[in-house]
Formats: sequence, structure tokens, C-alpha cells
Amino acid sequence: MATKPSLPKGTRDFSPLEVERREYIKSVVTKNFKKYGFQAIETPSFENNSTLLGKYGEEGDRLIFKLLNSGNFLKKTNPEDYKNQDIQKLGLQITEKSLRYDLTVPFARYVVMHQNELDFPFKRYQIQPVWRADRPQKGRYREFYQCDADAVGSKSLFQEIDFIHLYDDVFTNLKIKGVKIQVNNRKILSGIAEIIGATHQLIDFTVALDKLDKIGRKGVEEEMLAKGITQEAINQLSPIFEASGNFEEQLGVLSDLLSASEIGKQGIEELQFIAQAIEKMPLKSASLVLNITLARGLDYYTGCIFEVAPPEEVKLGSIGGGGRYDDLTSIFGLKDVSGVGISFGLDRIYLVLEQLNLFPESLATGSKALFINFGEKEAMYCLQAVHHLRAKGVAVELYPDAAKMKKQMNYANKRNFPFVVLAGESELQANKFTLKNMRSGEQNLFTFEELFAYLNM
Amino acid sequence: MATKPSLPKGTRDFSPLEVERREYIKSVVTKNFKKYGFQAIETPSFENNSTLLGKYGEEGDRLIFKLLNSGNFLKKTNPEDYKNQDIQKLGLQITEKSLRYDLTVPFARYVVMHQNELDFPFKRYQIQPVWRADRPQKGRYREFYQCDADAVGSKSLFQEIDFIHLYDDVFTNLKIKGVKIQVNNRKILSGIAEIIGATHQLIDFTVALDKLDKIGRKGVEEEMLAKGITQEAINQLSPIFEASGNFEEQLGVLSDLLSASEIGKQGIEELQFIAQAIEKMPLKSASLVLNITLARGLDYYTGCIFEVAPPEEVKLGSIGGGGRYDDLTSIFGLKDVSGVGISFGLDRIYLVLEQLNLFPESLATGSKALFINFGEKEAMYCLQAVHHLRAKGVAVELYPDAAKMKKQMNYANKRNFPFVVLAGESELQANKFTLKNMRSGEQNLFTFEELFAYLNM
Repeated sequence: MATKPSLPKGTRDFSPLEVERREYIKSVVTKNFKKYGFQAIETPSFENNSTLLGKYGEEGDRLIFKLLNSGNFLKKTNPEDYKNQDIQKLGLQITEKSLRYDLTVPFARYVVMHQNELDFPFKRYQIQPVWRADRPQKGRYREFYQCDADAVGSKSLFQEIDFIHLYDDVFTNLKIKGVKIQVNNRKILSGIAEIIGATHQLIDFTVALDKLDKIGRKGVEEEMLAKGITQEAINQLSPIFEASGNFEEQLGVLSDLLSASEIGKQGIEELQFIAQAIEKMPLKSASLVLNITLARGLDYYTGCIFEVAPPEEVKLGSIGGGGRYDDLTSIFGLKDVSGVGISFGLDRIYLVLEQLNLFPESLATGSKALFINFGEKEAMYCLQAVHHLRAKGVAVELYPDAAKMKKQMNYANKRNFPFVVLAGESELQANKFTLKNMRSGEQNLFTFEELFAYLNM
Repeated sequence: MATKPSLPKGTRDFSPLEVERREYIKSVVTKNFKKYGFQAIETPSFENNSTLLGKYGEEGDRLIFKLLNSGNFLKKTNPEDYKNQDIQKLGLQITEKSLRYDLTVPFARYVVMHQNELDFPFKRYQIQPVWRADRPQKGRYREFYQCDADAVGSKSLFQEIDFIHLYDDVFTNLKIKGVKIQVNNRKILSGIAEIIGATHQLIDFTVALDKLDKIGRKGVEEEMLAKGITQEAINQLSPIFEASGNFEEQLGVLSDLLSASEIGKQGIEELQFIAQAIEKMPLKSASLVLNITLARGLDYYTGCIFEVAPPEEVKLGSIGGGGRYDDLTSIFGLKDVSGVGISFGLDRIYLVLEQLNLFPESLATGSKALFINFGEKEAMYCLQAVHHLRAKGVAVELYPDAAKMKKQMNYANKRNFPFVVLAGESELQANKFTLKNMRSGEQNLFTFEELFAYLNM
């Protein structure tokens, strides 16, 4: 009656090597978060529906995993709604909680609920899984980790500068060269919309522009037209699509275009301030690039926005992104808390490191040596050595059964032990151990002290 | 229209200090897991209903959180079942997946699904949250972490010995003194049931005995009577309830009682083997105690069982437990894979460390110094120092806004910065920094190099 087990679609098991590699990425990111003064918080996997629903748009609401109420979940249902197959209404009658969809809304909830305990500016990071009932496809999962750092309670651009350096430090530590930190400013986009007379269509304008990567300039223009932005307005965008040159030169193009827009000029000034600071404190391995067509999908950004592109030889979307928002916590009743945050795309960073062969080799290694088991007496002799080696911090193991030598050596090979220790009758009598190097085949007869010295190298 | 946010019952936010402390416990446990050759795996937060349901008894099934199917969840429902308010049937029609209830069943599923990639004995650890729709109460949450290590694919008692040393190492590293590792063997319980003629009531017998802590000897005897175990049989249990003395002496009592039971004698032999090994390789800070009334609630144990009691001065239930099972993976069709595993109760270990004041002080500290912000020019001067200090690995921060001095100093105090750096007009001219020790109040005028040397101590 055993069921043949399988995994739900869009979910994954992680093998020991995969866990080690993921932990490696997390440890590099975490170390840098701490260096910049960010502190970890954690929030529950599920939140009340009232916290989550309505925060991600209609599409988002549909992708949220809802938890069936426990006990008699039918108690509060309305038979009329069942008859009408009204899944909207019934859904809310039989569920009260949902799995979190991102870390941003729970963070806003956290800040509001704990506002009296927190010291602002509050700088937190959070690395936890999120769940989305998306159609699974290559590289898109229903459970995946997000990794966010946010600083709330200050409008200072020094925060943006910190985040750029933080990105640079992380990718430098991970040895990924050629990362591009693209930056833009929502105020510039607002300014452009103002200049071309599309202020009331700012969101349509932004959403269309955000698709430039995917659908090209022509596609963007068509979408804008379809949304009612005039051809005349679109024509004015030419300098933006055609802008080239370095950071300063592109800012020059914008200055000309936006000279009549207060908000646009403010956006330019902010980027100038940031660019000058980075010039004084240059990045180690990444480069800072102005991308005046960068828009970012999310509604809540109001200032600087970031998007990090992997090295060109890796064909992958962005490996990080973020920006400044002025009003995130107001959804929970706390106004005027400006913040800025970034995230790291852990799954994609994993793919980059894998493709460029940048995971440290040391991650693959487990224990240092396997002690072969020749029988109860010999095994007990070995276990004492194992015990003492572990006490000195050396990871070693005893094969638990007196299986055939070949089986044990096979096991040692497969599990990649660099050394095997053999102690049969003659070693016991001499109170010694034979150490075999699994790569070179070399064998040495050692006392315990020699064994320790050797394995501890 | 802002909703006042709250948390679902039985769930928790973790503050930065709590996260640090939890990470500290995890890091000690993980370090030791690795030293003993265990490797990490991770499994998805939710599994198919077919994987989880029916594995934890009726009560368990009720406590499993089920995920409402996305899309039109009513599609597959039977109107008859709705009319009859049949929550059992409807529950299965509108859900396909559930949040994991423990790490053991997902581990068994993992072993069966990956059996061809794994090298047996396979030793894995897993530290992940689990969810139970239990009634929340003090110390009992609906989301909590489990922390398990298991070794499957060998019947060798050397594994049990390893686990005892592993427990001892972890609690020694955590500086918790006076931990008691209680051990017993299900074969002994089977032997007792056999001797008193209650073999066919073994589970009732075990379940009743397991409650000794809570309901006392009288309560256990009453429950056994109620379950149909005869008074005569219960009378024969006296030596067990009254057994005292050390490990060897208690084994002596059992030897007398179980001389006619093959399985009972086997259980005694196993414990003897383990006790002798521990005598040769003594524990560092914990003690190994035979508790012949220890039963453990779970059905699947077949050999040695463990339960770890915290130091006596801490009034808390067990902080760990585990045991040998012979047939865990057969629920998924893989027979004859004996295993043994233990778990650590992270939440309770946290309470023990808190109560005994054993968390390292260093955990409370975040960044080393806060640079006070006197205005844009000074701040930019400071940020360059901050940038260089971070490059050398020193965690420091700049207050992002040129707020009033008092506000900034307050912030430094509340966030517990050990040092504050002040750089106004005169420091800028001298290219120096004033470092203030926040505890002693002492101030020094330093060059950057001196500042670094001081903060890097």
C-alpha cells in the first residue's frame, strides 16, 4: 500500500552540495549586510489574509497560497455562494491566512507593529522563502528564497550610496566580475512624463518602458500608443531611447530634456550626487551605469531605482534590484516613513556561480577521513581515535558495519573522503594507524599524534 | 483605509537579537553535525497530501495545514458532500498539498526518491520550520523549527554511540552543564510486555508508560487497567517503577526480569554495549542515564530511544530526543532501511540559554562605531572613512541625516554602538577624527590609521 512519492510541482529538494553552495552565497551576503549595519529579522511564513491580500494587485492575489482553515472550515460558508460557485467569496470564507508572497509587505507590517521598539533609521535584512502559485517553468519555482535589505526612516541619499557599495562588495567577494549596477530615478521618469504631457498616464508609461528589454523600442511605443499616449508625446522620447555615452553625458541629455520639470531636475541632482560619491569611492569590481530607460515594475518606488545585471557572458535576467519608496508603511497606517531597499536574486546568483565555475572547491568536501571497520574490536579501537580527532575539531567517521573491504572503499570513494584509515590486527598491536591518501594512493603507518598532525593540516 | 496589522495566532516575529541568538544555537549544532559527518539537505515547505496524510495518526492529520488549491478550487467538489457538510471529503477535493508537519516523513520521502543517488549509510541533517494547527499556548507555536540528524542504512550500534557523543558535544559547546541523556530500548519494553503477558497490547502499554512524567505511577497503572492490561500483569511492573542505582545496577534488575525474553535480552545487550563504549570515551559535560520507564510517544521506534533533559534548575520538558527505527521508508515502498536519528529542541534550548544567561555577550553587538553627521561636507568626509573601514572588514555606519546632535547620540546609545566618531570643521582641517568611547566617555583625536587600529582591536 506504499505510495510512490513525488514532489509538488514547482518545488525542489536540495542535495547536500546544493545546500552547501546556497549557504555559501548566503554567508557572503550576510557578512556584508552586517558590515553595513543591517540586522536580521524573521517574520512568520504565513500572515493574515488582511495583511497580504490587495497588496500585489489582482494578479498577485490570485498567486497567493491560501491556508484552509483548520477544523470545520465549512462553518462560515454561505450555501448561496457555493451554489453560485463564487470562488472569490468562498475563498475568503474558508481561509484566514496565506503564505507570504514576498518579504516587503511583511516587513512593512513588522515596522508598523514594532514601531515603538525600533530605532530609526532601522536597517534590516531578511533571507526567507516566499511562495507563489505561478505556473512553474525553467528557473521559476513556487517556493524560492528572497534576500532583502532595507533602510527605513531616512531620506538621505547616503543610503543609496551604501547600497551601491554593498552590491559591489558582495559581487566582489563572490568573485563575479563584470556586474553592472544599473541606476535610474523615478523622478526622472515623472519629469519625462510631465514634459511629454503624460503625467496622468505615468503608470502606463512606466509599465511600458519597463518592457524595453523584452519587446524592444517598437514594442514599447506600440504599447504606449495603445494606452493612449500620443504619437507626438512618444516622438519626444527619442533622445531617451538614443542616449549614449557615460553617466555624465547621459545626465547631460536629460538636463536638456528636463530643464522645465522641477521633479525631473531633482531626479538628475540625486543621480549626480550619487555618481560623484562613487567617483570618490570607486567600486571594486562592479560598474555603475545610468540606464534612463530603467523603470522597474513595482508601483511603490518614488526615487532612485536599481537593477543589477550579471556579467555579459551569462545569459540571465537581473540578479538584484531595488529602490527608494516614500510610503510603504502607510498601507498599515504609518505615514511618512521613507525607505530604500535592495534584494539579491539568490537562485540566479547560484546559476551565475555555477556557470562561471566560481563556487569554492572546499565546499564539496565533507569529512576528512573514513576509518574502515574490520570488526567489533578493531572498530572500537578506531572509534576511540575518531572520538579524539573530533574533540580536536577534525571531522572523521567510522564506517559503522564490518562490511566487505571493497564496499567500504567504494563508499569512501563516492563520498569523496580524501583519506581512509585502516587499523587491523597488526596496527592494533603496534597501537598505530595506516593512513591512505585516496588521491595518490600513498600509505603511511602513523601513531595517533602523527595521524592527527597529518589530518589537521 | 489602512488595516491595523496583527500576527496569526501561534506565530512570531523575531527581532534582530532573537535571530542572532537562534543563529548562534544553529551554528553550534551545525558545526557538530558536520564534525560527525552529517550533511545538510532541504525539502520543500509543502508536500503532496498523499505524502503526508495518514502518517501521523488521526490527530496528526487534523493538525496538518492544508493549502487551498489555486484557481477554481470548487471545480472538483461534489455538491452532495457540501450539502452533507462532509469536511473530510471536501477537504481532499479542494486541497492537494499541505505544509510539512515534521522533518521525518519528508526525509523518508527524500531517501526513497533519491535512493539511487545516495550512498548508504546516508547521514543527513535538516534544520527547517514545520507547521502544526495546534492550539497555541505558552511555548507551543504553530510555526517552529525542527533540527534533526539521522543516519540510515546501517544497524550498527556505533551510530547510537555517535549520537550520544554528538549530544554531549553540542551541549558542552553551548556551555549547558548538567544535561541528562536518558536512554532506553524499545526491545526492553517489548520484553517486559512479553513477560507480563501484554504483547498484544504493546502500544497501549508504551503509550501509558510514556505518560509517567505527567500522570505518575498511579495514573499509568490506571490507564493500563483501563486499556485491559490485567492487575496481575501490572503488579509485575513493580521492579521497573522501583528500579534505582546506576546504569549497571538497573540493567541488573532488567536482566533478572527479562531472563526469559529473547527480545528483552537483546535490548539489554545493546544498552550494555553502548554503556561500555561511553565508559571508554566518557562524556564531557552531559551524563548518560538509563531510564527504563522511558517510552517515547512515536510508534516507529524499534531499538534504542533517547530523551534529553535540561539541567534540573531549569523547569522545562525535554530538549532533545530520538531513537532507532527499522522501517521508516517502507511507507514509501523502500524496505529494510534501518535508521537512527535524534532531534534538538531549538526553542527550548533557547529558553535554557536565556534562563541560565549563557548566550555569548558578543551576540548583542552590531556595528563598532557610528559616525555622526554634521552636514553634507562632513558626512562625505566621514563616509570615505566608513568606506575604507568596511573594506578592512570593520562594521561601521554613518548616521544618514544631519539631525540634531542629541538625536544622533540617542540613536547611538539605543543601538548600543561601543564608539561614536565625530568629525566637524576642525577635524576635517586636521584630517583627523574624534573617537568617543560610549562606555567610558573617553575621547581621542585620531588619524585614520589610528582610528582603524583602535576599532580593529
